[in-house]
Amino acid sequence: MATVDFWFEYTSTYSHLAALRARGAARAAGVALHWRVFLLGPIFGAQGLTDSPFNLFPAKGANMWRDMERQAAKHGLPSIVRPDPFPQNGLLASRCTTALPEAKRPAFAEAVFRAEFAEGRTISDPRVVAELLAGLGEDAEAVMGAARSAEVKAALRAETEAAQALGIFGAPTFVTEDGELFWGHDRMEDAFAWAAGRAVRP
Amino acid sequence: MATVDFWFEYTSTYSHLAALRARGAARAAGVALHWRVFLLGPIFGAQGLTDSPFNLFPAKGANMWRDMERQAAKHGLPSIVRPDPFPQNGLLASRCTTALPEAKRPAFAEAVFRAEFAEGRTISDPRVVAELLAGLGEDAEAVMGAARSAEVKAALRAETEAAQALGIFGAPTFVTEDGELFWGHDRMEDAFAWAAGRAVRP
Repeated sequence: MATVDFWFEYTSTYSHLAALRARGAARAAGVALHWRVFLLGPIFGAQGLTDSPFNLFPAKGANMWRDMERQAAKHGLPSIVRPDPFPQNGLLASRCTTALPEAKRPAFAEAVFRAEFAEGRTISDPRVVAELLAGLGEDAEAVMGAARSAEVKAALRAETEAAQALGIFGAPTFVTEDGELFWGHDRMEDAFAWAAGRAVRP
Repeated sequence: MATVDFWFEYTSTYSHLAALRARGAARAAGVALHWRVFLLGPIFGAQGLTDSPFNLFPAKGANMWRDMERQAAKHGLPSIVRPDPFPQNGLLASRCTTALPEAKRPAFAEAVFRAEFAEGRTISDPRVVAELLAGLGEDAEAVMGAARSAEVKAALRAETEAAQALGIFGAPTFVTEDGELFWGHDRMEDAFAWAAGRAVRP
């Protein structure tokens, strides 16, 4: 079965839509997913951006929130609740994701995104993260302890560097085994069709 | 029949995809289109951008061109030929569009986009524009003369200001009669479905 790397970022609004739809869409397309969390901060920083583009460009930001509401309705997802502040700090959630075995990452990622963008919770709050881990039957203390380890910090840093080396500049991004890079929730189905050999190639 | 305002810009790559697909998609959705050309330069300038974001952010630009090729293949459109330089100067073509009666604008706009992004021609060259007009049976000299008039220049400026007042920050953008703003070629079908009363409203 073809595998698609699904690069996601916890502060990214469209990563939320993608994360909540990814497993169903991948199943429908007959592809496997490799969930890879990374940090946009260093990548935006290298581009000279000091804040989310949605904050830097208010007209774009206003439209993004309305678009999120429309997209959530279109896809039957929970209504959007805007986190305050936006963007959130996703470092702890990212490290916890990295600390989990790969098979447990999708469910945790979905839980984090729901808490952040459908419930407006503060995902940098260790109590919130602990509650989400416990809700999935994880040993929250153990996972959060591992998340503070040098190994996990280095692993997340390495993933962010790998994303940057691939030319990733935003999230979500989907990368196929033959190296095609699809940026954005809007390209998720295209990426899966490409991986499954069903896309018209240019 | 519901009408959707289709705001397009000649230097915008995704306006090309939208322009070549708009009439067919609108017909299929049962909506009418109001083709409105405007200039992104003043709007980007007000955002502090000094060049196309695709030039300012090279990783984003590289992905955009590959995405354009994939999207053209997906939708059965002509292969993409990158204009040099990019972005082109679309002022003359925009003024000629404004000088034409509204019913003649769609065919001219499609011809300009094809010349620019499927043939790599220089759309700021008056000979190219004259040839496109003549190819549509227009009196090229008369249209280009009108394009130089104070009235047409003012009308195009007014449309650009109207776009800015609507909160438009990029192209293409689709605006429905009830004021919903959909940004991007990726939202064209959503905008038409909304206008036709077939969208799930948030």
